[in-house]
Amino acid sequence: MAAAQVASHPVSTAADGGNKKEYESLCEKLKEMSTLGGISGLLGWDEMVMMPEGAAACRAAQKSVMAGIMYDKQTDPELGQLLDELSSNGSVGFDPFQQAVIREAQRDWVRTTKIPKRIAKRRAELESEGYQAWTTARGESNFAKFAPVLEEWVSLIKETSALIDPSRSPYDVALEEFEKGMTSARIDEIFTQVKEGLVPLLKQIREKGTPPDTSVLQGTFDTKSQADLCNSIAKELGFDLDKGRLDVSVHPFTGGSHPTDVRMTTRFKDNDLTEGLTGAIHETGHALYEQGRNLDYDGLPVNQALSMGVHESQSLLWERMVALSLPFSKYLAPKLAGAFPQLPDLQAEQLYGALNAVKKESMIRVEADEVTYPLHIILRYELEKELLEGTVSVPDLPRIWNERMTSYLGCTPKDDAQGVLQDVHWSAGLFGYFPTYSLGAMYAAQIYKAAQKDVPSLEADIAAGQFSGLKSWLNERIHKSGSLHPSGDDLMRAATGSPLDPSVFLHYLTEKYTALYQL
Amino acid sequence: MAAAQVASHPVSTAADGGNKKEYESLCEKLKEMSTLGGISGLLGWDEMVMMPEGAAACRAAQKSVMAGIMYDKQTDPELGQLLDELSSNGSVGFDPFQQAVIREAQRDWVRTTKIPKRIAKRRAELESEGYQAWTTARGESNFAKFAPVLEEWVSLIKETSALIDPSRSPYDVALEEFEKGMTSARIDEIFTQVKEGLVPLLKQIREKGTPPDTSVLQGTFDTKSQADLCNSIAKELGFDLDKGRLDVSVHPFTGGSHPTDVRMTTRFKDNDLTEGLTGAIHETGHALYEQGRNLDYDGLPVNQALSMGVHESQSLLWERMVALSLPFSKYLAPKLAGAFPQLPDLQAEQLYGALNAVKKESMIRVEADEVTYPLHIILRYELEKELLEGTVSVPDLPRIWNERMTSYLGCTPKDDAQGVLQDVHWSAGLFGYFPTYSLGAMYAAQIYKAAQKDVPSLEADIAAGQFSGLKSWLNERIHKSGSLHPSGDDLMRAATGSPLDPSVFLHYLTEKYTALYQL
Repeated sequence: MAAAQVASHPVSTAADGGNKKEYESLCEKLKEMSTLGGISGLLGWDEMVMMPEGAAACRAAQKSVMAGIMYDKQTDPELGQLLDELSSNGSVGFDPFQQAVIREAQRDWVRTTKIPKRIAKRRAELESEGYQAWTTARGESNFAKFAPVLEEWVSLIKETSALIDPSRSPYDVALEEFEKGMTSARIDEIFTQVKEGLVPLLKQIREKGTPPDTSVLQGTFDTKSQADLCNSIAKELGFDLDKGRLDVSVHPFTGGSHPTDVRMTTRFKDNDLTEGLTGAIHETGHALYEQGRNLDYDGLPVNQALSMGVHESQSLLWERMVALSLPFSKYLAPKLAGAFPQLPDLQAEQLYGALNAVKKESMIRVEADEVTYPLHIILRYELEKELLEGTVSVPDLPRIWNERMTSYLGCTPKDDAQGVLQDVHWSAGLFGYFPTYSLGAMYAAQIYKAAQKDVPSLEADIAAGQFSGLKSWLNERIHKSGSLHPSGDDLMRAATGSPLDPSVFLHYLTEKYTALYQL
Repeated sequence: MAAAQVASHPVSTAADGGNKKEYESLCEKLKEMSTLGGISGLLGWDEMVMMPEGAAACRAAQKSVMAGIMYDKQTDPELGQLLDELSSNGSVGFDPFQQAVIREAQRDWVRTTKIPKRIAKRRAELESEGYQAWTTARGESNFAKFAPVLEEWVSLIKETSALIDPSRSPYDVALEEFEKGMTSARIDEIFTQVKEGLVPLLKQIREKGTPPDTSVLQGTFDTKSQADLCNSIAKELGFDLDKGRLDVSVHPFTGGSHPTDVRMTTRFKDNDLTEGLTGAIHETGHALYEQGRNLDYDGLPVNQALSMGVHESQSLLWERMVALSLPFSKYLAPKLAGAFPQLPDLQAEQLYGALNAVKKESMIRVEADEVTYPLHIILRYELEKELLEGTVSVPDLPRIWNERMTSYLGCTPKDDAQGVLQDVHWSAGLFGYFPTYSLGAMYAAQIYKAAQKDVPSLEADIAAGQFSGLKSWLNERIHKSGSLHPSGDDLMRAATGSPLDPSVFLHYLTEKYTALYQL
């Protein structure tokens, strides 16, 4: 189904056929849960942005009560009965959006009800214990203090996955939580191709490239001016302040309670202009996806983001494909020159080079550039899959981590704090999360290329600060279709004409960095 | 029971006697409802202070879902059964705080479960319809457009009251919603005494008094400086920013989600320094009460505010007894002089006079000073009681309103917009609410007098900007006892040694204004 059809698809909330009443009852229950989810979203945002410190315990109690109420609704036997009746009827009489509503609700039902309370409780406890253990272990660079948590997560995730779907590998079932419709076989295919292209490109850049001059972005930049500039850019990109807010928090994020109540946050450091700027544009990309959700299906799972990877594609499309492009530097350079007295003569080419320098040594994922980032992800993906498959054991992890860092990224961590302990994810049992970052980057490259084809003036528009054409294109092709498609590949097929094709991403990087580094 | 005992009372969550298990089950249910109430409180605060305008519909849906969940919990038959068992056992084995928990829970149970859904629904609808009708009627100064709403409210309130307690008068049952343990017979006694004292005092002030010079507070005052000053004063009075926030909203209020999460708001106008200043101190009084709630009984109704009147006593104690006193002017005058360049030589006596001028004409309640305010309240109290008793009919209301304005306050509204239509309360069915404003003022005078007796240095402390003695006294005597006492009179007896005595209030006003107006 083409995206243009998605947008103009006539809305009907009832099937023509037999199960009209059941479908309506299902929607009522789903909408109530969605509203409860929105309230929890607001509690979370408030906690990060507004809540006084002394209220931490009361907020924990509020979240726990909400989680209990949500669990009761999610496991309500009436909901199960409705889904049984609707699923047994196949797709007869339901349009594609309605079919997606039933499919997604069924999926959530299975993932919630198959897990006994004992396991759900232990997972929640291990999240807290794991975070504590990880913090200590990283602080002391002592992997042994984190290893028991990791052992227990591996065993818990295997147990959980077998309960949800014993016919599939534990990793595939875990992955499904973050990237619907994706399999490790498919990721292997994609990541192998990416690794084969990126490792030599990186080698070339490092050995033969002429690095751009980054000195212009070094120094001290007033944070108030950074905030004013970034807020005005977020609005120019299309963030709607009538349906959202912009605030400051320690860790930038996009949250809120509803597509009409999207709350993004930013953070600014006076010694790092790039981080604040690209961070704000990254969150704007997430926020535009949220504000673009299809209100014709308000409160139904079909209007939710398809996956973490697709969500990340929207932040990375704006952060990388747009904001790290030369046309955007043409728009941005005079703005920076106006905002900061030390940049009076900033030129677009100079800014473009400085924003796109590849790090000489890329040891830490969260500080990586777009060339080295996927190699960090591939390393983590391989290891977490091998842990679940049993081909790598927990005690061997630090050694293998360091070996692959050397092989893929050309640098070796000096200790485990800088190596295997650098990320928080595994401490919370988030196995299957890492790949979505790079899938997002690849979706973004492919989506951007399709938009370029459909909107021939795109680069000129960006240079002129005109972003509404791109935003509308994304609204129609990506945002409005929500979870209509069962996988990222299907969404790519509908929006760009082919499933995810990593060669688009590789081609983009190769072309860009060949020019930039004069390879 | 003396307040000092209240504070040191040993906490036990279980009765020694037979119904220990039932009491614990009751507490668990009550705490969950309290937590849900806190979440609703946060939703309300956010709506007034943070929410983007476009999210209004989604917020309404969130509030409605929360109200539905709360209603289910409030009317849970298991809760009713527990209360039956606990109530039938009398107070055997329960300490006074536990007895108060059971008493308050029983009271809430009756007030919720006796009202059929039909009436609850109609009341909710009539609140919205009433607000619309009132807005139109006031805009056109056309009482006829509001009269049908008022007729329906009178009938609905009679019906509701009869369902809750047919043995008492409809007005007394309605009053109980806002002022627990209060009766109209007791208010008649109090208000008659107040009216007999105030009407001649006001006449004397107007006819024989020498008004203080108010020119010093006229002019334009930078709102940013006002906000900075008021926020610093709120902190000096004792507002704890670790357990609360200070923000700005269109209508100042104090809300939040818990005693550790108290959120007060203020508003500043550049042409009115007094309103911003006294408003901020008023809200600080409410906020200190909320932050002072007894966390030994967290989530239980005994730690809630006793009544609207007692809550108002805390805001008015700080706004009037403290901030409108001469010692406070001694503290405030140099601060104002520092904050506003047009007040370089401001003297305490000059400021005290300007802050305490009695309006020449007091037509509007919300703009009234402390001398005329009670007369506005007495007029409304008489009329709403007479409406429910049937001794005044809705069509006669505007005429009687104007006659009593002339008689009590010496001025006659030029139309109904300025007269009977000036307040929003009746449009929402809030019959029994008005008296709490003036009961609060009288509680405040009596409480302050008791504090003065216990803290001999009180006035010198205030002049020196030392407020912690008064705050601690209020924490122990008023805040911590929450809803332990069944009425405001009982609280007054425990905290000050005698039930509410309006002569303390009259004496305070007479003495203050005799000196100020040189009577």
